[in-house]
Amino acid sequence: MPSLERVKYRPVAVRELFLEMKNLSELMIDLAYSAALFNDKELAEDVLELENRVDTLGYLLEMTVMIAARDAHDAEILTGVSTAAAAADKISDAAADIAAIVTQDIGVHPIVTEVFEKVEERVMQAKVNPDSPVAERQVNQLDLAARMGVDIIAIRRGPDWIINPRETECIRSGDVLITRGGQSSTKEFKELVEGKRRKQET
Amino acid sequence: MPSLERVKYRPVAVRELFLEMKNLSELMIDLAYSAALFNDKELAEDVLELENRVDTLGYLLEMTVMIAARDAHDAEILTGVSTAAAAADKISDAAADIAAIVTQDIGVHPIVTEVFEKVEERVMQAKVNPDSPVAERQVNQLDLAARMGVDIIAIRRGPDWIINPRETECIRSGDVLITRGGQSSTKEFKELVEGKRRKQET
Repeated sequence: MPSLERVKYRPVAVRELFLEMKNLSELMIDLAYSAALFNDKELAEDVLELENRVDTLGYLLEMTVMIAARDAHDAEILTGVSTAAAAADKISDAAADIAAIVTQDIGVHPIVTEVFEKVEERVMQAKVNPDSPVAERQVNQLDLAARMGVDIIAIRRGPDWIINPRETECIRSGDVLITRGGQSSTKEFKELVEGKRRKQET
Repeated sequence: MPSLERVKYRPVAVRELFLEMKNLSELMIDLAYSAALFNDKELAEDVLELENRVDTLGYLLEMTVMIAARDAHDAEILTGVSTAAAAADKISDAAADIAAIVTQDIGVHPIVTEVFEKVEERVMQAKVNPDSPVAERQVNQLDLAARMGVDIIAIRRGPDWIINPRETECIRSGDVLITRGGQSSTKEFKELVEGKRRKQET
């Protein structure tokens, strides 16, 4: 459990805050389902970490909206943003509840597994080994979607999360890649990322 | 607002209850985003109706789980199902919050619209006219995905919702179809469904 710091106001555009909350909450649902399906504690812990982040973004957004609203008219208009942001926060809470089934060893019930299994694609995380053929290359150079049917949906770089990385984003040694794709290609890609396999099969 | 009836226990498999809760909650997020993006009150009202349904399913699931648990061991195992179901319920609540921005005329803030716009596909609903070329035909006979790039994600038939309809499901006059697809093909399909256009363009 990370120590919780007091959230201090800093000026960030509401657009940026809300966009990140929405993207993170959607990513978290995917991560949480996969964590529950494969009893993957690492993924589950990512979800719990991201939930803290969404909470922080939510507080910042609320503060920003409050400061922006000068009168009743402003307040009425801005309610539409804070309501939508609160919904993203609720979605992230739901994802965290699912992840807690894994981290607290409550045990994922076979019924839940069966229902989550309908998601055909698998979400995986792997840490980029310095020797990996993907290290220091741009996402588009890997041509992952076409060659392997794998998508990089997020990159965890130290304390930062890059959601839906751009095609020109450079993958660095030490990055943790979160991918989505078919089960066999996902396995192959994990081996590439971790430096246990040298070449992409074409 | 539909009148709320007391939820009475009836024996339904937990698997069925949870599967429907998960499917509905995911559909609701899509519907709610589209309702907010296009200020579509009909879609928003569908979301609010489905939220009641998910609540009812949640109560039934809780009752079923309680009856199934005979001892501490059972209770420990079954917590994994009720926690996951509670998460699906939370997701559906979040969708309803977004829909309420539309139904209560709070007004969708431009920032929210901008962020939701990143979803390229549009969700649409249309009622099947008796004269429509899609009436009384099976989903697979329309060959929608290949010919128009449109997917039927749900059918509302009177009080019933058919989520992810099977390929052999027969579309009846009076059904309300919920589809997802590109904007121009969605418009064309809506005209077909409502009997304002006679033939699919190929």
